Amino acid sequence: MSFNPSDLTFNDAGLIPVIAQDAKSHEVLMLAWMNAEAVTRTLETRRVTYWSRSRQSFWIKGETSGHTQELVEFRFDCDQDCLLVLVNQTGAACHTGRRHCFYRAVKGDEVVELIAPE
Amino acid sequence: MSFNPSDLTFNDAGLIPVIAQDAKSHEVLMLAWMNAEAVTRTLETRRVTYWSRSRQSFWIKGETSGHTQELVEFRFDCDQDCLLVLVNQTGAACHTGRRHCFYRAVKGDEVVELIAPE
Repeated sequence: MSFNPSDLTFNDAGLIPVIAQDAKSHEVLMLAWMNAEAVTRTLETRRVTYWSRSRQSFWIKGETSGHTQELVEFRFDCDQDCLLVLVNQTGAACHTGRRHCFYRAVKGDEVVELIAPE
Repeated sequence: MSFNPSDLTFNDAGLIPVIAQDAKSHEVLMLAWMNAEAVTRTLETRRVTYWSRSRQSFWIKGETSGHTQELVEFRFDCDQDCLLVLVNQTGAACHTGRRHCFYRAVKGDEVVELIAPE
């Protein structure tokens, strides 16, 4: 079966959530969003390209920071309404300078910080 | 710092996306949604409880299938608008009977199936 981005289910804003996972460490790095064109660009360039909801523009991950994501594998889920990209992450995935965005956990009633900025 | 579900950022429908990851294999299992009450129930019961958008009701994962998710760690991201739950998954996480929902990948222009139902 051949792949067509239009087969995916996008939300009312034309976006689909994308989980980025480190292809080597298997850490979940971040969640961001793509529109259909960002999906096409990611597959063609192998550089993960999101749609920035705050800036309303394409966001080639790492274009300014250098913290790029090279696409290793592009997956989609059973309902075709979520993507999983396995990536080679250069530097910190999180804008706080941390390796990934999920650096806080709830332990008991408290929030604990799991990793510091690099 | 103590944790309060109301500190999280929910979308216009009152929901936040939740990535479930297997605590042992580190496979990304699925993406689903919680509202604030589902967050509270998940933390209190340690049984991962989503909000079903299709049924508009609480969805205690595995309640009918037996394919439960026991909460191991509850994390949230830098923007507080996405959750990551590390879980002990019993049986298949995907309703198709597969271990996880991300069983299809795009290779070249083709869709390939990575795993079969168990």
